Amino acid sequence: MSIPETMQAVLLTGHGGPEKLVVVDDHPVPVPTSGEVLIEVTACGMNNTDVWVREGAYGTDDDPDATATWRRGHESTLEFPRVQGTDTVGRIVAVGAGVDSTRIGERIIVDFSIYNTETDCMVDVDYIGHGRDGGYAEYVAVPTENAYAIQSGMTDPELATFCCAYMTAEQMIDRARVAEGELALVTGASGGVGSALIQLCKARGAHSIAITSQAKYDDVASLGSDAVVVRDNGSLIEAVQSAIGDRPIDVVLDVVAGPLFGDVINLLKAEGRYATGGAMAGPVVQLDLRTLYLKHLEMHGSSQGTRACFQKLVKYIEAEKLKPLLADTYPLSRFHEAQAAFRKKEHFGNIVVQPDAKWQAKS
Amino acid sequence: MSIPETMQAVLLTGHGGPEKLVVVDDHPVPVPTSGEVLIEVTACGMNNTDVWVREGAYGTDDDPDATATWRRGHESTLEFPRVQGTDTVGRIVAVGAGVDSTRIGERIIVDFSIYNTETDCMVDVDYIGHGRDGGYAEYVAVPTENAYAIQSGMTDPELATFCCAYMTAEQMIDRARVAEGELALVTGASGGVGSALIQLCKARGAHSIAITSQAKYDDVASLGSDAVVVRDNGSLIEAVQSAIGDRPIDVVLDVVAGPLFGDVINLLKAEGRYATGGAMAGPVVQLDLRTLYLKHLEMHGSSQGTRACFQKLVKYIEAEKLKPLLADTYPLSRFHEAQAAFRKKEHFGNIVVQPDAKWQAKS
Repeated sequence: MSIPETMQAVLLTGHGGPEKLVVVDDHPVPVPTSGEVLIEVTACGMNNTDVWVREGAYGTDDDPDATATWRRGHESTLEFPRVQGTDTVGRIVAVGAGVDSTRIGERIIVDFSIYNTETDCMVDVDYIGHGRDGGYAEYVAVPTENAYAIQSGMTDPELATFCCAYMTAEQMIDRARVAEGELALVTGASGGVGSALIQLCKARGAHSIAITSQAKYDDVASLGSDAVVVRDNGSLIEAVQSAIGDRPIDVVLDVVAGPLFGDVINLLKAEGRYATGGAMAGPVVQLDLRTLYLKHLEMHGSSQGTRACFQKLVKYIEAEKLKPLLADTYPLSRFHEAQAAFRKKEHFGNIVVQPDAKWQAKS
Repeated sequence: MSIPETMQAVLLTGHGGPEKLVVVDDHPVPVPTSGEVLIEVTACGMNNTDVWVREGAYGTDDDPDATATWRRGHESTLEFPRVQGTDTVGRIVAVGAGVDSTRIGERIIVDFSIYNTETDCMVDVDYIGHGRDGGYAEYVAVPTENAYAIQSGMTDPELATFCCAYMTAEQMIDRARVAEGELALVTGASGGVGSALIQLCKARGAHSIAITSQAKYDDVASLGSDAVVVRDNGSLIEAVQSAIGDRPIDVVLDVVAGPLFGDVINLLKAEGRYATGGAMAGPVVQLDLRTLYLKHLEMHGSSQGTRACFQKLVKYIEAEKLKPLLADTYPLSRFHEAQAAFRKKEHFGNIVVQPDAKWQAKS
């Protein structure tokens, strides 16, 4: 198979609005260097992180409103132009020096993490699509350890719904030590990480209560939580209590925060654990430290995940413990349309883009 | 030895100001029931908890400003009149049914916790001086398991400086898993819990940086921290960084919060741990959840401690690993004066009250 010299790709050209994203047809195909593999991309899932990094919406320690990328407190690794795209699925078509050429042909799901260490330490973590080019292109080169061969009856766009959201979710669940039989309250349950949290709690034998909007009720109810509670419909605390009676909530898994934050902290049992990996409705919250210490609570901030998290995810997929939630597919040439649909949050499941040559409209 | 029928005691008669505290000379001496011992009190240390419970300053889940006692989310066990006083030292003078009478005569330091369980679970914990009468009296009855015999060359008022503050501190340190060789930032270092945190970090081989006011600088410097940083003197972050260079802060142990909270969170290294057991300068803080998740932080609320904590404390005292910080002693009849001095926070170390018949002015 001959590999072309240029390819279709979406380039992020700076911090700003969607106009900073440019679809081109003549971007150089990357050449895999030592220890890398070259993947012919068939599908790449979208994530909020793409949007927030484009906007520079992460703030700084000193100024929550500052324009800044991910990796708070580190030198930025984001250079322009950058090909974003974290949830890459495809096939290995070439290998760099030191990589066994028998890998060529493997069907791959990419672990998007750049660990920068051999340990489970997350301090210096970066990711493919931020610190180096990602999957919104026809080809991407990644370290061979990030390219996981996968056996699955799912389609490539279906496989591309998992990586970033499910890894983020599994790490949140790990940080909060969710155990078999425990009950977790999950906010934002219709979103990528939220629906992952519900499915991953179930995969480890834990129970969940999902919080979502009226519009997403039926979708969320299909995920396997014990109960679904609609927000913005009177008192959230009363609604949750009426759904679960006096069962204690062992863990809150929160990707929404904002106005819900106080309620979910108050719903948590004494000695309960709270974990967050995002804060869609507003990250700057008011916290009463007396609640924290009088109830002996713990709170965990979590971002990305370890190699072990990703390996568990691959196992769950291969064992058919997770249901792919594919909302729609778009060709790369319609990237702006795809991201606008993604931003509208009217879909359920993930939106996946594919190089035009690989695109198949979702049936 | 004959035990009288009535005694001197300080009675808390309701939520409110100091006028709710009444010193009487004719309170009934308690009779130890099954499993209890009667202690002739020689000294009892003061704590903020006494004041906050009197004021009902703990708020509720729904209303941070509500008048409410300790034990958020539980039925109150505070009845009036109540004898407060947590840090009791004395001698056993009688035992209830089922307690070996050879305990009579033992010199005692009281673990003030009412565990309400055989486990280390802190959910239902209460304390002597709140859920039952405490040590601001000539006699107090406590469960025999709370009465620890102690061998020490310290005076009784010196021993009465430890219980509540050091147990609170040791549990905070445990929750935050402070390890030998790590560096902890300690706020409120001149206070009861703060000075305990410094001494207890040192006792387990960890390093600390103390934050305090200019007025308390010399006192705090005597405690054994690696550095003392004065607050309210320009940028706290710059002052800490200039004191420690680029050594990472592994743990923040915070009993101050309020305006310092944002700075100490920002000073914490990525994957660092924060623990709080009080919030002298204001418990309701603004938290940027992005800082929590981008830096993979964890936060622990801690209150009181386990039996193991108290046992470790007794061992540290017997091994002379802790220095008693006795600011002053007052007779019970001058209780209001003692608490006013305590509230002024101009002292260093703890203020201890003694029954008038036992009182010896601090030399």
